[in-house]
Amino acid sequence: MHLDLSVSDSDVSSFTPLVVLELADDTKAEAITWLLNRIRDKQQNGGAELLVDQVLLPVQDGQKSNPNVFVVGSTSQRLLNGAEDVGLFKESQDGTMRGFTYANRESFRDFEGDGQAFLSEAECQYIIKHELDTLRAKHEEHVPGYPKLKLYPGKSVVRRLQSKGVLVQYFPLHNKEDLKRLSFSWYKKIKLSFQPLDDIRRYFGEGLALYFGFLEYFTFALVPMALIGIPYYLFDWEDYDKYVLFAVFNLVWSTVFLEVWKRCSATLAYGWGTLNRKKAFEEPRPGFHGALGINPVTEREEPVYSSSKRQLRIYLVSVPFVLLCLYLSFYVMMVYFDMENWAISIYTENPNVASGILMFVPSIIYAVVIEIMNLLYRYAAEFLTNWENHRLESSFQNHLVLKVLVFNFVNCFASLFYIAFVMQDMVLLRQSLATLLITSQILNQVMEAFLPYWLQRRRNKKVHKRMRRLMGDKELPLLEQVQLEAEMNTYLGTFDDYLEQFLLFGYVSLFSCVYPLAAVLVVLNNISEVYSDAFKMCHVFKRPFSEPAANIGVWQLAFETMSVIAVVTNCALIGLSPQVKAYFPESETQLILIVVATEHVLLAFKFILAFVIPDVPKHIQVKLDKLEFDSLEALKKRKILEGAETGKYME
Amino acid sequence: MHLDLSVSDSDVSSFTPLVVLELADDTKAEAITWLLNRIRDKQQNGGAELLVDQVLLPVQDGQKSNPNVFVVGSTSQRLLNGAEDVGLFKESQDGTMRGFTYANRESFRDFEGDGQAFLSEAECQYIIKHELDTLRAKHEEHVPGYPKLKLYPGKSVVRRLQSKGVLVQYFPLHNKEDLKRLSFSWYKKIKLSFQPLDDIRRYFGEGLALYFGFLEYFTFALVPMALIGIPYYLFDWEDYDKYVLFAVFNLVWSTVFLEVWKRCSATLAYGWGTLNRKKAFEEPRPGFHGALGINPVTEREEPVYSSSKRQLRIYLVSVPFVLLCLYLSFYVMMVYFDMENWAISIYTENPNVASGILMFVPSIIYAVVIEIMNLLYRYAAEFLTNWENHRLESSFQNHLVLKVLVFNFVNCFASLFYIAFVMQDMVLLRQSLATLLITSQILNQVMEAFLPYWLQRRRNKKVHKRMRRLMGDKELPLLEQVQLEAEMNTYLGTFDDYLEQFLLFGYVSLFSCVYPLAAVLVVLNNISEVYSDAFKMCHVFKRPFSEPAANIGVWQLAFETMSVIAVVTNCALIGLSPQVKAYFPESETQLILIVVATEHVLLAFKFILAFVIPDVPKHIQVKLDKLEFDSLEALKKRKILEGAETGKYME
Repeated sequence: MHLDLSVSDSDVSSFTPLVVLELADDTKAEAITWLLNRIRDKQQNGGAELLVDQVLLPVQDGQKSNPNVFVVGSTSQRLLNGAEDVGLFKESQDGTMRGFTYANRESFRDFEGDGQAFLSEAECQYIIKHELDTLRAKHEEHVPGYPKLKLYPGKSVVRRLQSKGVLVQYFPLHNKEDLKRLSFSWYKKIKLSFQPLDDIRRYFGEGLALYFGFLEYFTFALVPMALIGIPYYLFDWEDYDKYVLFAVFNLVWSTVFLEVWKRCSATLAYGWGTLNRKKAFEEPRPGFHGALGINPVTEREEPVYSSSKRQLRIYLVSVPFVLLCLYLSFYVMMVYFDMENWAISIYTENPNVASGILMFVPSIIYAVVIEIMNLLYRYAAEFLTNWENHRLESSFQNHLVLKVLVFNFVNCFASLFYIAFVMQDMVLLRQSLATLLITSQILNQVMEAFLPYWLQRRRNKKVHKRMRRLMGDKELPLLEQVQLEAEMNTYLGTFDDYLEQFLLFGYVSLFSCVYPLAAVLVVLNNISEVYSDAFKMCHVFKRPFSEPAANIGVWQLAFETMSVIAVVTNCALIGLSPQVKAYFPESETQLILIVVATEHVLLAFKFILAFVIPDVPKHIQVKLDKLEFDSLEALKKRKILEGAETGKYME
Repeated sequence: MHLDLSVSDSDVSSFTPLVVLELADDTKAEAITWLLNRIRDKQQNGGAELLVDQVLLPVQDGQKSNPNVFVVGSTSQRLLNGAEDVGLFKESQDGTMRGFTYANRESFRDFEGDGQAFLSEAECQYIIKHELDTLRAKHEEHVPGYPKLKLYPGKSVVRRLQSKGVLVQYFPLHNKEDLKRLSFSWYKKIKLSFQPLDDIRRYFGEGLALYFGFLEYFTFALVPMALIGIPYYLFDWEDYDKYVLFAVFNLVWSTVFLEVWKRCSATLAYGWGTLNRKKAFEEPRPGFHGALGINPVTEREEPVYSSSKRQLRIYLVSVPFVLLCLYLSFYVMMVYFDMENWAISIYTENPNVASGILMFVPSIIYAVVIEIMNLLYRYAAEFLTNWENHRLESSFQNHLVLKVLVFNFVNCFASLFYIAFVMQDMVLLRQSLATLLITSQILNQVMEAFLPYWLQRRRNKKVHKRMRRLMGDKELPLLEQVQLEAEMNTYLGTFDDYLEQFLLFGYVSLFSCVYPLAAVLVVLNNISEVYSDAFKMCHVFKRPFSEPAANIGVWQLAFETMSVIAVVTNCALIGLSPQVKAYFPESETQLILIVVATEHVLLAFKFILAFVIPDVPKHIQVKLDKLEFDSLEALKKRKILEGAETGKYME
């Protein structure tokens, strides 16, 4: 069926291509026909009512390239209806954010003519993704041509094709012009300025924009701490004379920081219309499997997997595995300390340059090992969480995040805790902290941005050359773009980025009172992080589908937990400081009791503070209340009118 | 206008009277006419569309009784519409709880004929209250006859009349038959059984039913602890040998107890239809005042009081006042200890019976003083919170609860903490705990139930006699009932009842490891509490308006806070116990560090447990999800149909 499409741009220019759909190159023709028909079919008939066309990529170096690549687009009318389906919030004429409805389209700001420019491209792509995801099987028993790909009424077709590898991938296309404009205002300007969060959100969606917002906020919040840290470091206050003050500052800072972020994030999310948007019903994730049963919520047939079985897997396999890994991590830590001692003993025997350098070797090796262990553990955690067979993507993510967080936390901080509280050696603590921080930052930047960029550039050049060779000088922007982007790496979400920030937050809030330069290093790292992350989003990865998000989700909890641990750690560090000890020369017991009491009071204060500071700024809360009030009033009015009519009929 | 109503039952029997409205006896006739018209007026015209009639009470002992007493009722059609207004949830034919709508009335279980028996009496009274409360001024500038009682469009008429004392009170009438049936199944049966929570809810509403449910749950939860406590006490394990075990039990118990209650409460609230019911927009409370301005949410004119002024009042007056009271409470405590020492010194000088009894006198006096201080403080807190001028009843209540809780906690427990941790005298702790517990229980039962009951009975007899004298043998059930109930005390809500349970929970969870009989005493107290509370609800107080509630609200938080404090206290008590100390004969420091570490682990475990246990049982969650899914699907279907129609038009 795809043979009648010639390789030319004119065929696919009948609509703006937004999303690319790549099927396996050996997909059976009847399955393709069926899928395309379902995508094109009217909504009343259960179709997605989208436009779809084939992109026939040229033969490459004698090898036939994958012929089953399609681009999907839509009419603007269909997109507007879709915007209503997904529950998009838009700014209305009176300045409040309201759920978009096609019937009231004229009451929204920026709605002009037939609404062609009303939705951003990312929104359009998100809508198309939603419509594809919710394209459901009707009465087909299996995918045509694939008797083993069972279907049941209500099953998402795309999820099923995806879970069996027939659908290789689907991704939104970049928009070169917008991208150029965005990347200029984002990271190519020489003038330092805030990030263009609204533009980022328009291009990449709310989830990513919130990440960059958080990154920026975190970096700015660290500046005062960095400014205080520099004189501490420069004037070499090695006698820990002032670090009690610094610890107290740390403690207040880490609490206020997170509470204020919640308010900032609510303000951003309100402006982007995600704060009060209702969550849609979540589909089972593609990998979810089980015997066919009845879902008690939807009353549709779907795979069912008993939650007690999942609990068993979690508590009998995953939890012991995580504990084993933690034990391993401790073991590695002890080996590191042995190495450290060995290096010191060599240095004390032969204090020369070589043995002086050797002193740093164990720390560097340990930092590298930590990174490797984190990486390996990450794969294991993904495998295990997958095997736990969670029904929802969100619950899969939560379990994955939890596993990875606990391990990363222990792996990265165990040695520091050991040095601080068991060995009580503040000089070593400072040295280890510096080595860990610097090594992991360098590794991160290399692994995260430069390596993928370098690989990507090589690939780009190859594709570009090949296309040139095949097509001569004919302009083939779309074909080349599809070809290029299909081979780009997929951005796996903000997980790793947040994880990195989480660990940096840990270094700063837990121990920066012994190494005040930590905040400075983190600020520097984050400034380069903004640029490298921005760069990688624009040039290294496929464009990700925009992800509506009202907050940073489970990460808020993770950061808050860290800040509670920070209170405990800082109090303990204060208790260990020589000049506090000097106040209680006779009774160590009294010192400990006072430190513990202070810690409890601070923790209580922290919880009260978190309770007292409202999570949503007042002016946003008023708008939310107004929205709710208006809808209640409208409902009431309608009822009274209906009541009056009923009354008339009865009289 | 009320002169043409003769004192006879026939006039008011045209409808079932549900609510009594009592205006001041010098209310101007034009105001009464206006109010009655507004109540009777159709909804389209902004009226409440209710039935209202005058009850003319007979002349009493030469004094004219208040002529301005009215009974309010309604047609069942109006009540069903009202049920939709207030967003009542009812069980539908398929067993799920759904928001009642008049249009779908046939799809609800128990809806028969014209739906006369569909709503419970308490629900009808609640609906009438809601309709009266939301009866709003139209274009009147003031209440007719009262130029000073300013009105503005949208102001609740009833609230305004209430705030200026023109409306003395309004309350629902008891239903003698239902009450007899309820009180029989509740507390008059000899057979021990669970309380009839559903019947209580049907008669008194969800708020009260949840209180009694909590009381029952709490009492049952205490039984295992009481059972363990008895042998501890009987076999005189005075050497504190076993109390480490008891403290650990205590700790786990207090965490699990509260988590499980959340699930129980969710189950109850779901069955009663309050779990997923939307909250209506809250009116300003009657006492709220301020300059007339525009409410940004409703965009209606209403009194506005700047929240920064309120904050100033809270932080500059209320907080210092509370702190002063706390200081006073400490001062009284120190005086108590002086008295205690004095009593002991007398006993050691002259050990005879009189001085032996004298030993107990300071504790008893202190217990009485504590109760008196609590009472006085309560008035002060109410005055202050009123003066803070909160706009909403809910925020008023929260601030009041917070003030009272903090003071009561310190007032009741300060001496125990002092004895336990400063004096470290476990014998005295045990003795004080017993005295405090027993004295406060006796005082409570007397103040709460027997005294009001006795007063009430005297009043009842007087009214009964008077009525007899006036009317001879004529039967005047309604008149007498209105007269009797109007003079009954008003039930001020569950505040004091929860507060008492909160303090009892404190005694048990904080210190019961030193006085294991505490749990036994609390169980006994609570059994009698159920009876006396049930009795007072049925016979001492006016029937309260039913209060829809999905949970025990701020009290859940209060109990949880207490259980966190309990972890700290129990760990400290364990640390102080001689046999734990015996393990660390040399190093007290090590002991303290281990206790502190244990405490931190336990607290972390507690938070994880609270996080892991879902707040809503799975079968309820499924039903909630189903409801949401159904409404989403219905919306989608409607849109597709509409879309199809639009499509047709466009074609």
